[in-house]
Amino acid sequence: MEIIFATGNKGKLKEVKAIFQDTSHKVISLKELTVIPEIVEDGLTFEENARIKAVTIYDLFRKPVIADDSGLSVDQLQGAPGVYSARYAGENATDLDNNKKLLRELQNLPEPHPASFICCAVFYDGCTYLKAFGEIPGRIIGEPRGEHGFGYDPLFLPEGYDKTMAEISLDEKNKISHRAKAFNLLKDIMRRDGKYET
Amino acid sequence: MEIIFATGNKGKLKEVKAIFQDTSHKVISLKELTVIPEIVEDGLTFEENARIKAVTIYDLFRKPVIADDSGLSVDQLQGAPGVYSARYAGENATDLDNNKKLLRELQNLPEPHPASFICCAVFYDGCTYLKAFGEIPGRIIGEPRGEHGFGYDPLFLPEGYDKTMAEISLDEKNKISHRAKAFNLLKDIMRRDGKYET
Repeated sequence: MEIIFATGNKGKLKEVKAIFQDTSHKVISLKELTVIPEIVEDGLTFEENARIKAVTIYDLFRKPVIADDSGLSVDQLQGAPGVYSARYAGENATDLDNNKKLLRELQNLPEPHPASFICCAVFYDGCTYLKAFGEIPGRIIGEPRGEHGFGYDPLFLPEGYDKTMAEISLDEKNKISHRAKAFNLLKDIMRRDGKYET
Repeated sequence: MEIIFATGNKGKLKEVKAIFQDTSHKVISLKELTVIPEIVEDGLTFEENARIKAVTIYDLFRKPVIADDSGLSVDQLQGAPGVYSARYAGENATDLDNNKKLLRELQNLPEPHPASFICCAVFYDGCTYLKAFGEIPGRIIGEPRGEHGFGYDPLFLPEGYDKTMAEISLDEKNKISHRAKAFNLLKDIMRRDGKYET
């Protein structure tokens, strides 16, 4: 049986979870009660997937939603991993799994490996649907570098940079990234759309 | 305007929150959507408060709930801080504030300062209400010791121990504490009640 422990106290939660460990009950905190829906991202494009996320969440919570779908498009791989970027090495793949698979796919292909990060950002409030795209060109290098970011950032060298997307700070990434471009454009479109003061 | 960002990806969340920082929109994650209710713990006993928490949360979520209310009872202070243990130094008091206030109250009183930690643990599933108490005797020392636990643990020396409740590990605390006693007893009562296999 799942039992809610009605506390906001982390210390108590830790103690009582341990006390109930030898039972068949699962003690969950109030915070763990959020039911985060499984969204099936079966779109064939970044926009389709971003739209699926936004509409699914809007339908559940009836509040304005932004969503994005983004990924890496490698020229020599005909645009792969593309919309499969987060699950390139399988359904529950980690960033490391995906990075390793990408390096394997590229190992017999001549350098450089031109690639782009692409992002589609959307807004939906049950009435208005807005979208914006962002892209950053660059290339895939042979070894991961850097600890920031996530996904393929350690393997991606943006055009004109000597640092990977994982070697730059969040502030710097948010000046150049595909996601920053898409969401900044989306902000402009929301502003122009008139309804959304920013 | 509050906008939900439909993502489970912490990296994306960080980036997009930063991108929307210069707007009047507040970007919130799916996890931040949980509405944790303010519970007014205005009972006069540990049991009343534990029951208020359990019934309030049951009424909201219609799922089995456990709750506790617990506190420190100091003999020389006629049982204070008691049900006010978490807010002894005021409504938003930290553990440190409460500990300091306790030491101030005791500074002109002769040692030792006998005290007990008391806990009332309850179970409620909309139909059955079960309760159990736990207590651990000890005394309050003049200076905080130890980094584990929370609340008054650094000032509380359990009877027969030379370590404070904050100098012992969670495992050890869960062998002797008032909360462990109350919840272990509650587990037994739930088991005996027949409906709750453990």
